[in-house]
Amino acid sequence: MRKNTLIAVALLFGSVVSVFGQNKVPVYLDDSKPIKERVEDALSKMTLEEKIAMCHAQSKFSSPGVPRLGIPENWMTDGPHGIRTEVLWDEWSQAGWTNDSCTAFPALTCLAATWNRDMALLYGNSIGQEARYRNKNVLLGPGVNIYRSPLNGRNFEYMGEDPFLSGQMVVPYIKGVQQNGVAACVKHFALNNQETDRNTVNVNVDDRTLYEIYLPAFKAAIQEGGALAIMGSYNKYKGQQCCHNEYLLKDILRKEWGFEGVVISDWGGVHDLNQAIHNGLDMEFGTWTNGLSWGTSNAYDNYYLAQPYLKLIKDGKVGTEELDEKVRRILRLSFLTTMNRNRPYGSFATKEHALVGRKIAEEGIVLLKNKNNMLPIDLNKTKKIAVIGENAIKMMTVGGGSSSLKAKYEVSPLDGLKKRIGSQAEIVYARGYVGDASGSYNGVASGQNLAEKRSAAELQAEAINVAKSADVVIFIGGLNKSDHQDAEGADRKGLELPYDQDKLVSELVKVNKNLVFVNISGNAVAMPWVNEVPGIIQGWFLGTEAGNALAEVLVGDVNPSGKLTFTFPVKLTDNGAHALGDFPGKNNEQTYREGLFVGYRYADKQKIKPLFSFGHGLSYTTFEYGKVTADKKELTADDKITFNVEVKNTGKRDGAEVVQLYITDLKSSLPRPVKELKGFEKVALKAGESKTVSITVDKSALSFFDDKKHDWVAEPGDFEALIGASSSDIKTKVAFKLK
Amino acid sequence: MRKNTLIAVALLFGSVVSVFGQNKVPVYLDDSKPIKERVEDALSKMTLEEKIAMCHAQSKFSSPGVPRLGIPENWMTDGPHGIRTEVLWDEWSQAGWTNDSCTAFPALTCLAATWNRDMALLYGNSIGQEARYRNKNVLLGPGVNIYRSPLNGRNFEYMGEDPFLSGQMVVPYIKGVQQNGVAACVKHFALNNQETDRNTVNVNVDDRTLYEIYLPAFKAAIQEGGALAIMGSYNKYKGQQCCHNEYLLKDILRKEWGFEGVVISDWGGVHDLNQAIHNGLDMEFGTWTNGLSWGTSNAYDNYYLAQPYLKLIKDGKVGTEELDEKVRRILRLSFLTTMNRNRPYGSFATKEHALVGRKIAEEGIVLLKNKNNMLPIDLNKTKKIAVIGENAIKMMTVGGGSSSLKAKYEVSPLDGLKKRIGSQAEIVYARGYVGDASGSYNGVASGQNLAEKRSAAELQAEAINVAKSADVVIFIGGLNKSDHQDAEGADRKGLELPYDQDKLVSELVKVNKNLVFVNISGNAVAMPWVNEVPGIIQGWFLGTEAGNALAEVLVGDVNPSGKLTFTFPVKLTDNGAHALGDFPGKNNEQTYREGLFVGYRYADKQKIKPLFSFGHGLSYTTFEYGKVTADKKELTADDKITFNVEVKNTGKRDGAEVVQLYITDLKSSLPRPVKELKGFEKVALKAGESKTVSITVDKSALSFFDDKKHDWVAEPGDFEALIGASSSDIKTKVAFKLK
Repeated sequence: MRKNTLIAVALLFGSVVSVFGQNKVPVYLDDSKPIKERVEDALSKMTLEEKIAMCHAQSKFSSPGVPRLGIPENWMTDGPHGIRTEVLWDEWSQAGWTNDSCTAFPALTCLAATWNRDMALLYGNSIGQEARYRNKNVLLGPGVNIYRSPLNGRNFEYMGEDPFLSGQMVVPYIKGVQQNGVAACVKHFALNNQETDRNTVNVNVDDRTLYEIYLPAFKAAIQEGGALAIMGSYNKYKGQQCCHNEYLLKDILRKEWGFEGVVISDWGGVHDLNQAIHNGLDMEFGTWTNGLSWGTSNAYDNYYLAQPYLKLIKDGKVGTEELDEKVRRILRLSFLTTMNRNRPYGSFATKEHALVGRKIAEEGIVLLKNKNNMLPIDLNKTKKIAVIGENAIKMMTVGGGSSSLKAKYEVSPLDGLKKRIGSQAEIVYARGYVGDASGSYNGVASGQNLAEKRSAAELQAEAINVAKSADVVIFIGGLNKSDHQDAEGADRKGLELPYDQDKLVSELVKVNKNLVFVNISGNAVAMPWVNEVPGIIQGWFLGTEAGNALAEVLVGDVNPSGKLTFTFPVKLTDNGAHALGDFPGKNNEQTYREGLFVGYRYADKQKIKPLFSFGHGLSYTTFEYGKVTADKKELTADDKITFNVEVKNTGKRDGAEVVQLYITDLKSSLPRPVKELKGFEKVALKAGESKTVSITVDKSALSFFDDKKHDWVAEPGDFEALIGASSSDIKTKVAFKLK
Repeated sequence: MRKNTLIAVALLFGSVVSVFGQNKVPVYLDDSKPIKERVEDALSKMTLEEKIAMCHAQSKFSSPGVPRLGIPENWMTDGPHGIRTEVLWDEWSQAGWTNDSCTAFPALTCLAATWNRDMALLYGNSIGQEARYRNKNVLLGPGVNIYRSPLNGRNFEYMGEDPFLSGQMVVPYIKGVQQNGVAACVKHFALNNQETDRNTVNVNVDDRTLYEIYLPAFKAAIQEGGALAIMGSYNKYKGQQCCHNEYLLKDILRKEWGFEGVVISDWGGVHDLNQAIHNGLDMEFGTWTNGLSWGTSNAYDNYYLAQPYLKLIKDGKVGTEELDEKVRRILRLSFLTTMNRNRPYGSFATKEHALVGRKIAEEGIVLLKNKNNMLPIDLNKTKKIAVIGENAIKMMTVGGGSSSLKAKYEVSPLDGLKKRIGSQAEIVYARGYVGDASGSYNGVASGQNLAEKRSAAELQAEAINVAKSADVVIFIGGLNKSDHQDAEGADRKGLELPYDQDKLVSELVKVNKNLVFVNISGNAVAMPWVNEVPGIIQGWFLGTEAGNALAEVLVGDVNPSGKLTFTFPVKLTDNGAHALGDFPGKNNEQTYREGLFVGYRYADKQKIKPLFSFGHGLSYTTFEYGKVTADKKELTADDKITFNVEVKNTGKRDGAEVVQLYITDLKSSLPRPVKELKGFEKVALKAGESKTVSITVDKSALSFFDDKKHDWVAEPGDFEALIGASSSDIKTKVAFKLK
């Protein structure tokens, strides 16, 4: 006994002496060795119990490292719009820390609407810096689920309806995050396109639609972005929960895409031990334990990948190959994040990050309608501005589910306008309506209780009265982060604006034609009054600097340049999922009957004129497109083709235009969408300036997924390249051939 | 407005691109630049508010970094015996984490009793690894307050009564901790030698005593150990609170010792803003806020070095030079800890650390008496062992104040004995008495409620009955971690053992002479029955592996080699502080009337025979000392002198002896102690083996502090070097001269 102690202590004492020496550093701690070698060395030193421990949570947001070997714990944080506040160990309640008030960045819908890859890099790097400073090594985001229905409560966290655009925007976001030694965990893989019954619904979708619509952004995140982690989704596919789905995780993610990163379950998304072992899941989080771990026993031992898994191994019922694979991937994550000695230290809730958010908000806000150039508001001619609507004063960084933030601050639209306009004009405010009342969670800073006591009629009357006397009316409405609005866990009940806003807008515009409607939302809404209202802005959820960015656009400090990333249908049945299907499903089955024809693909096919089209967005200036040319008439399968088009700013203001390239396959063995987005460039143009925009594609832009061959196919034949200012505003086109 | 945003974002975007480039790394983030330059660069970039923020806590145990600049937060953890469990943000309650059950190392009293510098390095490195793994960058320890009175409730956290021994043991501890990129914060500076009235008592001590007795261990910690931090104490000195004491912090620590590290207040030790600004304090912690910060306002803003300090600066009432100095020192701390890219990753609650603790326990346990070689217990001749006493089953890692731990496990003495002895002998247990009842805090695993219901007489009777029938009685008693025992916040009420243990021991030894008393404590206790009891062991608080280490010593797997680091007086008035003074003071004044004559210095002077002397400790073998020789007869002031003595293990077991060198100044212009410890070596000797032990000293070993000159003086003249096995067992001596 004494002998053993002495030997062990002697060994340890040796290691004390050589802590700063070079000779005795084990391979797994040797930064000069390849990661694979370090992983194998660490793995070879681990016990079975240490391996099991790494594969499941120890608290709401953390999982163990290997304390004996000095491999740090993994700490996750919800994203994708900011670093979530600290919660208690095993409860969702906030831990009451005072150092975790973050920068709230604009929602991903807004980021995507910038159509600016640089903004995505800036966003990713900034939020990555915040995660790093808070010692989180996995950011649970970004989300790239496709906008299939405008009712999905969680659309605001995603990047719109187009797989190409989502993929283009997610890649720099991930690279930006991961520059900080923080893993991005792209989510929710896959087909998590509704919140209703999200834990139980089984999605039926054909292979071609899966590969062409729902997977490309994930594939780009993995293969081009190098995402170190991916989150399985709650729903089922082929009858199997996606967190341990053989087809998605093993066949596609691991085998087809060669993913070497970590698959993390969505919180509480694991439901089957055998599938969790065998189907490619690495880390189990969020299985129900709430508060149980405060006692002496550790509730996390009951996770599927905890004691139950250990028992199966000890009983010889499963081997350890799957476990070793999981642990290899988790170790790799550690080596690339917490154990990357070169990673920066991050920064948190800085002025720079707020300005990044503001810049993205400025670029993402979409000017949907601007009749008679009513906008920007000319402060030289405006004496009184009526601001109406609850969303002018409502905090939008709070609520909505896991993306809810404790922001360092949030400038409301009303405050932003007041600050910007100062004494240049009088601002009068009327709330007009009251949204769901559920205390501070809904984030109205003050006045809610007072407002609630007044009837809807009184509030409307007050608003109309206020509007009458003003030169301009700015209605700031839309959705909010309450249940059945833009919020996790439930879907919207209809396309309409809530809280009788339609009626109020109609009444207001009767008394004051000079009305601009600012739609604060992450989803399309119906606008039955669209023809009466001259100015419409899509204002998203803009984060910390929301009000300042909105004010800048409204008064013209900023010339809007955002474009829609999803179609605004006139009515719900203008959307394929609703026209053809039974969203959100029956008996926990949801079939994607519209197939490929999501968003503009459905509108194009059915020749439905949307309320506002995918890619649409106006400017305070005007742009003229020249004729597009191709650098060749034919291309081979290994070739590339470049399209050039001159774009000129023909107005009097500097501005920026998103030049969009759509490809049409004129003849195909399988039915194809009328056109598909395959390229875009955002170009800044001073007043009067012209630039030639070049967009290059290869055969991947011409390919479809042949589900019989289970492969991508680019069929030789005739194609057209369409250059447009939106999906419904094609300016010029050119034909070419694939040989 | 837009222009500014654009410029800021452009700058940030530049930094995104160059994150991994070399060109744009600012000086403060450039690892190749000297720390001083980096500190100045960071300081030059900081706002006044950021500087103020760094100087005070934001939670119970953390203080802000500079989130904007990526300078991490500082996270402290109580030591010195293990890493304290996580507590809530602004409350002392445990946060309920399940990843923070640490290794409980033996108390520092035990470490010191090893008299083995290698053990201190091993201890420091091991606890430093645990702090590092838990992401704490400041360990609040070690403590080196001098053992002045056996009543001090916190003696167990310190290193005994001798300044030289404390200094020798604290230096490797600090180096071990700091190898891990974790700062050691040596405490409590200074004169915090009692717990009674600790926040208000003013200590009166002459300069010579201060410099010769109470400061040397701190000076060694700073100058030889390189401690990066020091903690001010609660008490007053010269009427000023020690956390902002001009004389201690400015004159001595900063000016005389050149300390460049951080002065941290003890928790709640700051009481005066102006003194806190001007007298060398850097970081304020623990000023009362409990729970207040959960609301919207931040209670920490009310700290002295928070808003009040900021206001003084803004009002122009104080300048910023002091603030800049504080921040420079805190930044330096960050650069050397959290921002040291080369620091290891640590490890936590490992088997190796448990074995380190066990090894230190094995070496620190002191065999005080062993009449007729009754120990070790010969298991070949022993059929039945009676274990008696509450401390055989009491958890000692819990309680006692800030050093209380949530240990991964703690082996009780009874469990250790049962495990070691197995079926070799029958073990019967009787509790014998019940200590203070206050629930789980006192850490009795089970049975307490049952025991409490029984009368003291019944428990005694049971114990006596159990003892009668046994071959050997092991009484495991002593003190515990309850108030007025070995615990922070209060002092003991007397030297006696609590809970009528003396009576019980006396009764037991009447029925069974074969009794060994194991004193679990961090303090000396009176032993009125000392002559009746043949075996006595000082068992300290031994941490995680307590029971195993004790069992090993009791049965002889380990040959004890610890030596006392403080004097056990027969009675309280054998101690100078109690014989001459009015401990713990009156009207918040406490005068150290005994002056230099602390511990053995008082016993020597008064020729009092202690119960057990400083430096005393027996072995299961015997050692014979040869004649000490000096390598010269005279030394000059710049010279060194080496003493050699041969020591032989004359018994039949391998063992280790602590060879102690005391120096006597035969003639001096100022009164000096009879002798003072100035060197020691622990030497391992196999049975029959001899080794020559060499101890070298220079004039510092001959010096005293001349308070008139305010300097150390080594007076030429005659000295003696005494070599002993304890302070009262001098084996050989040799005379020499200082020229």
